[in-house]
Amino acid sequence: MEKLREECGVFGVYAKDNYDIAATTYYGLYALQHRGQESCGIAVCNDGIITAHKDLGLVADVFTPAVMAQAEPGHMAIGHVRYGTTGATDRNNAQPIVVNHCKGSLALAHNGNLVNAYALRQDLELNGSIFHTTSDTEVISYIITKARLTAPSIEEAVDRAMDKLQGAYSLVIMSATKLMAVRDPRGFRPLCYGQTPEGAYVVASESCALDAVGATLIRDVEPGEILVFDPQGVRSIRTHCGQEKRTMCVFEYIYFARPDSVMDGSPVHNARRWAGRFLAQEHPVEADVVVGVPDSGIDAAIGFAQASGIPYGVGLMKNKYIGRTFISPGQKSREDKVRIKLNPIAATVLGKRVVLIDDSIVRGTTSARIVKLLREAGAKEVHMRISAPPFLNPCYYGTDIDSRDMLIAAKYPVEEICRRIGADSLGYLRIEDVVKLAEGGGGFCTACFSGQYPTQVPENTKKYRFERKLSEKEPKP
Amino acid sequence: MEKLREECGVFGVYAKDNYDIAATTYYGLYALQHRGQESCGIAVCNDGIITAHKDLGLVADVFTPAVMAQAEPGHMAIGHVRYGTTGATDRNNAQPIVVNHCKGSLALAHNGNLVNAYALRQDLELNGSIFHTTSDTEVISYIITKARLTAPSIEEAVDRAMDKLQGAYSLVIMSATKLMAVRDPRGFRPLCYGQTPEGAYVVASESCALDAVGATLIRDVEPGEILVFDPQGVRSIRTHCGQEKRTMCVFEYIYFARPDSVMDGSPVHNARRWAGRFLAQEHPVEADVVVGVPDSGIDAAIGFAQASGIPYGVGLMKNKYIGRTFISPGQKSREDKVRIKLNPIAATVLGKRVVLIDDSIVRGTTSARIVKLLREAGAKEVHMRISAPPFLNPCYYGTDIDSRDMLIAAKYPVEEICRRIGADSLGYLRIEDVVKLAEGGGGFCTACFSGQYPTQVPENTKKYRFERKLSEKEPKP
Amino acid sequence: MEKLREECGVFGVYAKDNYDIAATTYYGLYALQHRGQESCGIAVCNDGIITAHKDLGLVADVFTPAVMAQAEPGHMAIGHVRYGTTGATDRNNAQPIVVNHCKGSLALAHNGNLVNAYALRQDLELNGSIFHTTSDTEVISYIITKARLTAPSIEEAVDRAMDKLQGAYSLVIMSATKLMAVRDPRGFRPLCYGQTPEGAYVVASESCALDAVGATLIRDVEPGEILVFDPQGVRSIRTHCGQEKRTMCVFEYIYFARPDSVMDGSPVHNARRWAGRFLAQEHPVEADVVVGVPDSGIDAAIGFAQASGIPYGVGLMKNKYIGRTFISPGQKSREDKVRIKLNPIAATVLGKRVVLIDDSIVRGTTSARIVKLLREAGAKEVHMRISAPPFLNPCYYGTDIDSRDMLIAAKYPVEEICRRIGADSLGYLRIEDVVKLAEGGGGFCTACFSGQYPTQVPENTKKYRFERKLSEKEPKP
Amino acid sequence: MEKLREECGVFGVYAKDNYDIAATTYYGLYALQHRGQESCGIAVCNDGIITAHKDLGLVADVFTPAVMAQAEPGHMAIGHVRYGTTGATDRNNAQPIVVNHCKGSLALAHNGNLVNAYALRQDLELNGSIFHTTSDTEVISYIITKARLTAPSIEEAVDRAMDKLQGAYSLVIMSATKLMAVRDPRGFRPLCYGQTPEGAYVVASESCALDAVGATLIRDVEPGEILVFDPQGVRSIRTHCGQEKRTMCVFEYIYFARPDSVMDGSPVHNARRWAGRFLAQEHPVEADVVVGVPDSGIDAAIGFAQASGIPYGVGLMKNKYIGRTFISPGQKSREDKVRIKLNPIAATVLGKRVVLIDDSIVRGTTSARIVKLLREAGAKEVHMRISAPPFLNPCYYGTDIDSRDMLIAAKYPVEEICRRIGADSLGYLRIEDVVKLAEGGGGFCTACFSGQYPTQVPENTKKYRFERKLSEKEPKP
Repeated sequence: MEKLREECGVFGVYAKDNYDIAATTYYGLYALQHRGQESCGIAVCNDGIITAHKDLGLVADVFTPAVMAQAEPGHMAIGHVRYGTTGATDRNNAQPIVVNHCKGSLALAHNGNLVNAYALRQDLELNGSIFHTTSDTEVISYIITKARLTAPSIEEAVDRAMDKLQGAYSLVIMSATKLMAVRDPRGFRPLCYGQTPEGAYVVASESCALDAVGATLIRDVEPGEILVFDPQGVRSIRTHCGQEKRTMCVFEYIYFARPDSVMDGSPVHNARRWAGRFLAQEHPVEADVVVGVPDSGIDAAIGFAQASGIPYGVGLMKNKYIGRTFISPGQKSREDKVRIKLNPIAATVLGKRVVLIDDSIVRGTTSARIVKLLREAGAKEVHMRISAPPFLNPCYYGTDIDSRDMLIAAKYPVEEICRRIGADSLGYLRIEDVVKLAEGGGGFCTACFSGQYPTQVPENTKKYRFERKLSEKEPKP
Repeated sequence: MEKLREECGVFGVYAKDNYDIAATTYYGLYALQHRGQESCGIAVCNDGIITAHKDLGLVADVFTPAVMAQAEPGHMAIGHVRYGTTGATDRNNAQPIVVNHCKGSLALAHNGNLVNAYALRQDLELNGSIFHTTSDTEVISYIITKARLTAPSIEEAVDRAMDKLQGAYSLVIMSATKLMAVRDPRGFRPLCYGQTPEGAYVVASESCALDAVGATLIRDVEPGEILVFDPQGVRSIRTHCGQEKRTMCVFEYIYFARPDSVMDGSPVHNARRWAGRFLAQEHPVEADVVVGVPDSGIDAAIGFAQASGIPYGVGLMKNKYIGRTFISPGQKSREDKVRIKLNPIAATVLGKRVVLIDDSIVRGTTSARIVKLLREAGAKEVHMRISAPPFLNPCYYGTDIDSRDMLIAAKYPVEEICRRIGADSLGYLRIEDVVKLAEGGGGFCTACFSGQYPTQVPENTKKYRFERKLSEKEPKP
Repeated sequence: MEKLREECGVFGVYAKDNYDIAATTYYGLYALQHRGQESCGIAVCNDGIITAHKDLGLVADVFTPAVMAQAEPGHMAIGHVRYGTTGATDRNNAQPIVVNHCKGSLALAHNGNLVNAYALRQDLELNGSIFHTTSDTEVISYIITKARLTAPSIEEAVDRAMDKLQGAYSLVIMSATKLMAVRDPRGFRPLCYGQTPEGAYVVASESCALDAVGATLIRDVEPGEILVFDPQGVRSIRTHCGQEKRTMCVFEYIYFARPDSVMDGSPVHNARRWAGRFLAQEHPVEADVVVGVPDSGIDAAIGFAQASGIPYGVGLMKNKYIGRTFISPGQKSREDKVRIKLNPIAATVLGKRVVLIDDSIVRGTTSARIVKLLREAGAKEVHMRISAPPFLNPCYYGTDIDSRDMLIAAKYPVEEICRRIGADSLGYLRIEDVVKLAEGGGGFCTACFSGQYPTQVPENTKKYRFERKLSEKEPKP
Repeated sequence: MEKLREECGVFGVYAKDNYDIAATTYYGLYALQHRGQESCGIAVCNDGIITAHKDLGLVADVFTPAVMAQAEPGHMAIGHVRYGTTGATDRNNAQPIVVNHCKGSLALAHNGNLVNAYALRQDLELNGSIFHTTSDTEVISYIITKARLTAPSIEEAVDRAMDKLQGAYSLVIMSATKLMAVRDPRGFRPLCYGQTPEGAYVVASESCALDAVGATLIRDVEPGEILVFDPQGVRSIRTHCGQEKRTMCVFEYIYFARPDSVMDGSPVHNARRWAGRFLAQEHPVEADVVVGVPDSGIDAAIGFAQASGIPYGVGLMKNKYIGRTFISPGQKSREDKVRIKLNPIAATVLGKRVVLIDDSIVRGTTSARIVKLLREAGAKEVHMRISAPPFLNPCYYGTDIDSRDMLIAAKYPVEEICRRIGADSLGYLRIEDVVKLAEGGGGFCTACFSGQYPTQVPENTKKYRFERKLSEKEPKP
């Protein structure tokens, strides 16, 4: 799939009494499934003992009724979903990571990406540490464990560890008695918490997961904040708050998050409709119908229609049964003849001038195929509008926009892209507009568009050496 | 799931030369998956020899890459998807049925339901016939085989068999050398055919399956028509055409078919938008936003919005990862607290008067839950509009609307239903309007709404005796 | 595997009250697993309703704890195991066959092979019958069902059907209220019955299955006999008894049956020891140790050792974990270097003159490999003795000795076979001796050795046409 | 199963050029499957990059053709099989362990048990180390990695690590360029090596695995020896040789090893026959037939028969299809009525005085059942002889004889055991004889019989605290 991927989603639940924590985490992960389809896991804490189950696969595939029936009871649990690449996957990298240690067990779930993971790991290895995975989450677990040797409490150990961690991290951490929610000082990735009617606290990457388990959103975890849930209630440790400028990933609003989530006070659905409105203002066009590419372009298409007065229509039908096991047509030559995943609705576009909205163009091949589909179904004109600025730079904070090579926008000017995808016109959202999408304002990271990174970034050589080195070692048969 | 179910979808492909027929059928069935999720099968004819693979499960689960790799080559294939009930399922009932017989092998795929299956089967058994399944498709295969003993050709045998078959049947039949598409004289169920750029003929329940394999729709198979595809080309046998009044199932337009299909000349998407328009005319209401229940109410919601001038909005988010393995919350009490499958988008409905569109109310519990969700998200009013008339009668032609007991509309007047689902107002489409949905007009079966059955129907005792008798015998361990 | 295969094993249980019939059948089939590893099935009768579960695979693989947990209760059940070929297998051919019919349901399990199946099927098809499988068991079920239309009872229908059936058949049949055990008039295949301490009757191909379920052997079903188990007790219908000369398959004693079974009064283990004794008398040799090929040659080796006075030794170790999923070495050239399935025990054979006993030589390659293994382990001489006469003729009664092409004994004289397998000497059991193996004497079918068939056999052309025709049609994807 | 279990089996292959290393390791593990059925794994080194695949299950279940098809090529590989307990199992504990480290990757496979694992782990954790498994193999990998930080080579690091490791360990270790075979200074567990005709070196727990891959045994790895295989050939590091008295586990000869293996120069089959001979001398009895319990008592039974002159017979038939998925009879009361796993052969024992040979009595229930089986089959007398002394003490060196509670011999005198198993007489092998079983003599560990431990053993409290602590943390859902 020609799609960008979020790294992960995290979830946690803390109840005073026994609670249906495994099921609650299951539903929470289901709601966060869009943030990661490669692997998932749940760690449960029952009377101080942490047990975990994790595997490659979707939540419903890993947590079958048989597996759920064996889940331990308890009053605390954390969960994780991890993104899927097309290539080699590794069961070892599934989270939560569980650390067995004489100073106390620990389970961690992480969304984000450290920029100094390589240096930290190098140091640790040269002191005799052994790594079993290639993920920077294991680095984080080491840094916390080392700090724990001298720190008076686990929260103090986490607080000290944050001095060393650089980059993006939203963490949910569970010790034998406490649940913690931790967000890096710049707040790259979202993290929020709420409470169920029964009084259990719930932490999640997105508010849609709170909804899924019947919890009410209290607020977002603040950048730099450590929230501690324990028998005394909730405490906030704010040592690292306010140290850095807030640089939330703007692509969460445009692309990654679910439309029914609210992040840092702003509904995602509204942000996307605003993107459509800005497009209508900046790239107006005479047309008969506005069509969104399902599912990612629907919200912005409605915003475009509302702002432009051009009617909104359903012009593309997505086959909802297409899953990961789908067999693609053997003969390359047939590929653009078949219409299995997406089929145009001629009744909507025949003889019409169509505005087509999507949230991104990565390599351009998918967009070209969709434009062609609409023309074959009788569209007279196809005007493509993208509800984000062009990607030009790799992301170091937890998405896989990591190489200029694959990004069409990094290679060609807009006119050439328009020609290559076969559209009659093409317009991108402006960087000036993208930072206006969230209602409360607040700072954003727009590095993938602008190249202005809010932190030091790994030298390319280092970064690539690190990645190659690890992936080469990845245990796959 | 509180949803009605179509019985089946059928598909067939006939190529002069060897063609990628198994893959073509696979893609065709993928596009028809919405017509049946219980079981599926493909039968391939390679140089006169018919081989089949069928099993319980979705197309992608049954036809794994490993299974597809072993598929026989050939120039002809047929396929079938069958609907899924929540209860006992039976691998034996999977289709296509393959008949090995000294007069020639035969494979059959069937969509519909005979009204005289019980009587035909009784006759056959009393002459020593043995049945291995509980499906009326096996009855059809017997009737054709018996006719074949004296008929000069397989198409003549099919033609003679049609004299005995009463009710709904769209069939795709494959002999050693010929492919046939057969539609009952009233045309209850859809069936159409087209051609690929390479010249292969394709038959399918819906045109979306022709699109999926890159074929162009030629026309629908006419009620009563037998189409024969053989080395000489296509021939039409019209002995049974024009005998009966056309009574296409109107619910195909409202509910079963995919919006991107065109049936008997009318686009389904348009029919649904018309349903929304008629609702806006017949049951107008002052409101701020029109919301469709995904996925079934979206098209009518757009039609309602267009006709009423009230803006269309996305007010409900459906979790696209929910599949059949989803574990429902253990405690009943929690059920209406969790929002896993459907979550309201508060940004759309908060403080608004909402028109909520769906295509049916079966037992009423789902509708009540959705109305409640919207109110919890801040909707001031919720006005429910249903893009079909109320179901009041069982269907004998291939859907599972088979008992008055479960139908809320058969038990209560509209006002009481409105009260029970908690809506501020409720309006159904009128029967007068439902027959206007398809553009070309043509006759419809509206028996489930009106109780006027186009054929004799089985006496209840007989029907139920038949069904009970068979299901009791169903081989399940 | 270079091994001959039995067609099938059958099992049945009849209890007056509810009894753990599914589990009883499961254990019975486990004990009969050696008679068929391709597929298995159990049909249960609960208050007149027959339900079945069957699939490809071993008993333990098909009847998982989950499947067994769903098994219906009841007071009657039958079961079947079917043999495995290396090539295409077919789930449709799994037994028991269940027939749903207005004159009453029926389940059948069959061991044997009809010699007139082709003719019977031809007749049936020309009267409009449809076949779903390629097995002659379906032919039997048709013949019985046709007879049932006019017969006053199911046992009378079976009795009449026997007039038409020619060849080998040991049947267990279950109607809504009765269990029947039927053995063909020549008694080709074994069948016996017994009783559990609780009073339930048990029918099985071999007495080892009675042992497995704690039942005591009463006696063998006689050739031509129909035993009826119903609420009145056991009845014997002997219409077809004594019509034909008894011709029990001698290979059951030599090869197919389990050593702990007793058939027609003779223990199988003793028969095999006698085979070893006869070999010692007919083909004596000076040697230091007698070694049996595990598991098939062990019993005869002990008999040879006892008769010759040469010590018995364990000279070959079989890997007991080798199952059907074993991957054979990719490179042909390596095949005779690896010793995965069988490894010599040098401590037994080093510097010794070895008598090596096996029960058959089919193509000769396995024997050659074993002789070579022993020599590599230091054996000075290897004298091969075979506890059966040479196969020279196809079997039409239920084993797969069906082609002369693959039989080394049909191609070469004994001296040449000896040379080809690399042995120092080679001796086969004489036909005169083979008929003395069973204690009670009684008639045997020795057609595979002697070519003297006890019934008319199908003309080759017919037989092969039939088989090819069916197998070509076998539904496999 | 009332059986003792070996901890593990290890395997390694080193070829100069590319070789079919994954398949070779697969066959080697197949031959070692009896040493561990819980989990297995293979790690391959391809041009310095180590990749591994491991999972719960038998070799054939984990290494399916699909998995093998994806195996990396290379010139070096190691493999491991791990034993199965009936209770909770853990995929994390599967081996080989792969360590990714900046000083070089490492893969380890381990058979044995450290007696100071708890102390070593405690030290490591207090220095900030994190453990992902509960196995002492991870402790070993840490100790080696720490040593590697300052050692000039991996073999030097292993040599230094051996100073710290106490207890039983036979290791196969693979670095990016070298394969190492390491045996603890007392040689508790076997380890040997050989060479294939193509020149590849093969290391294995038992020589039967060398046979399986066509390699010729060169010699056993000596206690304390490190063998290094690299491009220069084989080198031996003997720093730790001769430091300690050799104390090979005698139970390897009696019980664990395969009869076709040769360990430290002595064939296992001979050792077992000697055990039978000693029994015949020490516990003679008048009898008619000697029967071994399959498979463990067969070899000793032959030895007993040879020494006593009483004929050897096959008196018990084992169902070879019984695997781990077998469903045990639901009702406890039925358990001793059914004879599924083992059935007596009446033809052998009826009216006879039977000597019954097995290799151990653990809880006594299995022995009692077998004695009862033989009596029911008509045995007049049953004299039980055990080819080992009574277990009285826990083993700390890698078997699961770990609690006195379950050992019948620790609770009752021989006469009482005899009475409880229902035998007419009972005799055990003497400790004086057990040390004579191996031909070359050499020292043995007989601690489980004598209580004389060759090393310091963990205080009970420590040992159990360690085990409980770890198992509590074991990640299981």
